[in-house]
Amino acid sequence: MKIKVNGEILEQIDFEKGNGLVPVVVQDETTKDVLMVAYANRDAIDKTIETGYAHYYSRSRNKLWKKGETSGNLQRVKKILLDCDGDTVIYIVEQNGVACHTGRWSCFFRTVATEE
Amino acid sequence: MKIKVNGEILEQIDFEKGNGLVPVVVQDETTKDVLMVAYANRDAIDKTIETGYAHYYSRSRNKLWKKGETSGNLQRVKKILLDCDGDTVIYIVEQNGVACHTGRWSCFFRTVATEE
Repeated sequence: MKIKVNGEILEQIDFEKGNGLVPVVVQDETTKDVLMVAYANRDAIDKTIETGYAHYYSRSRNKLWKKGETSGNLQRVKKILLDCDGDTVIYIVEQNGVACHTGRWSCFFRTVATEE
Repeated sequence: MKIKVNGEILEQIDFEKGNGLVPVVVQDETTKDVLMVAYANRDAIDKTIETGYAHYYSRSRNKLWKKGETSGNLQRVKKILLDCDGDTVIYIVEQNGVACHTGRWSCFFRTVATEE
């Protein structure tokens, strides 16, 4: 697997605002569903680029985390996008299995409100 | 405009983890594009439900913010979703005009990396 990096944009990721972390919105390439939101530090971004598989930083366990390492629900990363002010990224992924630890496809399975 | 609320789910939004704020992923209803990520406190969620238009909390200006109030780029909210651990929400919106202050449709217009 090969990932082509734009080094200039990579350096524009603003990790400082979030004390070394940026939120990562994870979107399925095919369905465009938002699957989950996690956090990454620079090391997690580097490991994602290096391996082609989504890595995050666990805020509860305080360590680098490869998604699906134990469950097998790996996320192959097709694209990484950065927003206008550089403090949020999107991983566009090919999701293996499901994204949510509850066994659901997406973590966003609860509805707070709907337009009638 | 009428919004139907699930009060039980509303109370499950965990504002404490983020010191009173949750990240909000904003997704266009039709294209499913992720348009932006902003933050909301309970007041912003309440105002969104009350008016049917997306409200956020500005971390830089420290105040409630109605998206598009000056630009006219309002976001009509069709659905609010909550993730499994309750610390992130999605607003599914009908975007009026563009979402990004740069004039672009989405804030995520920069590519960090692409699979080759």
